[in-house]
Amino acid sequence: MRIETELTRMLDIRVPLMLAPMAGVSGGALAAAVTGAGGLGIIGGGYGDRAWLQTEMAAAGNARIGIGFIAWSLEKKPELLDLALDRAPEAIFLSFGDFAIFSDKVKRTASKLIAQVQTVAQARQALDAGADIIVAQGTEAGGHGGKRATLPLVPAIVDIAGTVPVVAAGGIADGRGLAAALMLGASGILCGTAFFASHEALTHPNAKTAALGGSGDDTIRSSVIDIARSLPWPGTWNVRTLRNDFVERWAGDTNQLRDAAGTEGERYIQAAAAGDMSVAATIVGEGIDLVRTAQPAAKIVEEMERGAIGLISQAERMLVGR
Amino acid sequence: MRIETELTRMLDIRVPLMLAPMAGVSGGALAAAVTGAGGLGIIGGGYGDRAWLQTEMAAAGNARIGIGFIAWSLEKKPELLDLALDRAPEAIFLSFGDFAIFSDKVKRTASKLIAQVQTVAQARQALDAGADIIVAQGTEAGGHGGKRATLPLVPAIVDIAGTVPVVAAGGIADGRGLAAALMLGASGILCGTAFFASHEALTHPNAKTAALGGSGDDTIRSSVIDIARSLPWPGTWNVRTLRNDFVERWAGDTNQLRDAAGTEGERYIQAAAAGDMSVAATIVGEGIDLVRTAQPAAKIVEEMERGAIGLISQAERMLVGR
Repeated sequence: MRIETELTRMLDIRVPLMLAPMAGVSGGALAAAVTGAGGLGIIGGGYGDRAWLQTEMAAAGNARIGIGFIAWSLEKKPELLDLALDRAPEAIFLSFGDFAIFSDKVKRTASKLIAQVQTVAQARQALDAGADIIVAQGTEAGGHGGKRATLPLVPAIVDIAGTVPVVAAGGIADGRGLAAALMLGASGILCGTAFFASHEALTHPNAKTAALGGSGDDTIRSSVIDIARSLPWPGTWNVRTLRNDFVERWAGDTNQLRDAAGTEGERYIQAAAAGDMSVAATIVGEGIDLVRTAQPAAKIVEEMERGAIGLISQAERMLVGR
Repeated sequence: MRIETELTRMLDIRVPLMLAPMAGVSGGALAAAVTGAGGLGIIGGGYGDRAWLQTEMAAAGNARIGIGFIAWSLEKKPELLDLALDRAPEAIFLSFGDFAIFSDKVKRTASKLIAQVQTVAQARQALDAGADIIVAQGTEAGGHGGKRATLPLVPAIVDIAGTVPVVAAGGIADGRGLAAALMLGASGILCGTAFFASHEALTHPNAKTAALGGSGDDTIRSSVIDIARSLPWPGTWNVRTLRNDFVERWAGDTNQLRDAAGTEGERYIQAAAAGDMSVAATIVGEGIDLVRTAQPAAKIVEEMERGAIGLISQAERMLVGR
């Protein structure tokens, strides 16, 4: 038995689940594992390291995968889209910027255009740009995101999306979240936090440990790590991470961090390489309460699918009378 | 046909839906109407106006209702809890403060103790205090609330609540949200925004109009209206409202607003009385996209129930194969 939705039909997948293209986490092995388990794995193209992307596309082997880009960053290195399209991916996933710039190029290929949005207004822009699939991402998501929450955002976007499938992202890390998303009218889900500590993730081992001990209560959205890394993110989006010493120190003092970005940035990069999680960020979302063990990605997909099927097949038992 | 959950059994109600005790909005008529439609209406006790509470309890007639209090405010006027308990309400609803202070008194009566929380840590405190029902309120809710979002908060609290029913609040305004909440393991929902513009709500007519034209994209959490009203809210919680001139002016400048609270507070109070919604806040949550018409409360309850039953009874159609 499986869940069939517009998303599974459009992408020819068995499970209505996509891997979030987490920069530095969602590499070829993880993407291939999610695809192998029936979903769609998406490699995180990040900030445009060509060699990294080539390595990870190769690591995915022959698996049917998607490739994700940060739209404002891709504008600076548009040739990476050609590199990605040359592999004939199932989909190009874009978020955080202008979709229309890249839409024509993607839509001349067989790859689907997936546009991730954080507001109803952005969803309208994505639809106008011809997106094949809209991902409605709530603020509870780990990593970069906006201000609106998944539960009310998904149905509001479903109501304007017509026949374009809407995928729910943010705060979904088990079968309950998958079943709930389907009730909201979503065609499937996009999950990052659920796979952050998976065996195949490129996550530093210390970050995996920190994630598995973290709670959604302890996450915070801030621009701290973007400023420290001198990444020119537009103010529309910031980053959800676990709280740690570094974020606590600077979250209320970002102007001073800008002044200190030279030394603090160097300190951040070294900490990230060394796995010092008091400085380097553990980039997970509020769903982390639901993730307590490190598992192979296939097992995570399987448990989410089984959980959702169980809930859906038994839902009618909540109804009594005639 | 109806939805049966632990909540409907415990409160002996037909629909697993409770009215949020919105200060100045959820009066006796609205609470009675929600109860009459099969849910549980809860009067918003607000900041402790004894005469107002007496009037609204009387307006509810013989309806089985609950009465809600802001816990930190109730600490200053604990005699209002006695006034409420004298009516033998179905439930006392507490949020935003210490539940343990009032727990013993409520639990010596037949009234259930409903504790609304915004984090997993607060849920543990509420369970320790003997709450009969936990409301897990996400940041997308209108009015006062915290930082965590409903979709990941609800299952995280369900996982520690044992046999205590958990109710989802924040961002739920139609049958899709009710069905989704049940999938998350909630026993029901608490709704405010869905009833903010209902016929029976005490909301100013201009606020109803503003709400019905608003989008979740246009809401913001801030302390602006608490500072303007000189209400000593703890920093843990702030208020989601629609953006308007007044909030835009002061949200980034709350220290200066504190200095100007005398004149600005007076201006705020006059605007609220006059229905000037460029100054006075329209206190709704992100679910407002889903609320487009002013209706009687009973019709709102009925549509949410019917929508959820439809989704639940048809959920199995998403499953294919064997």
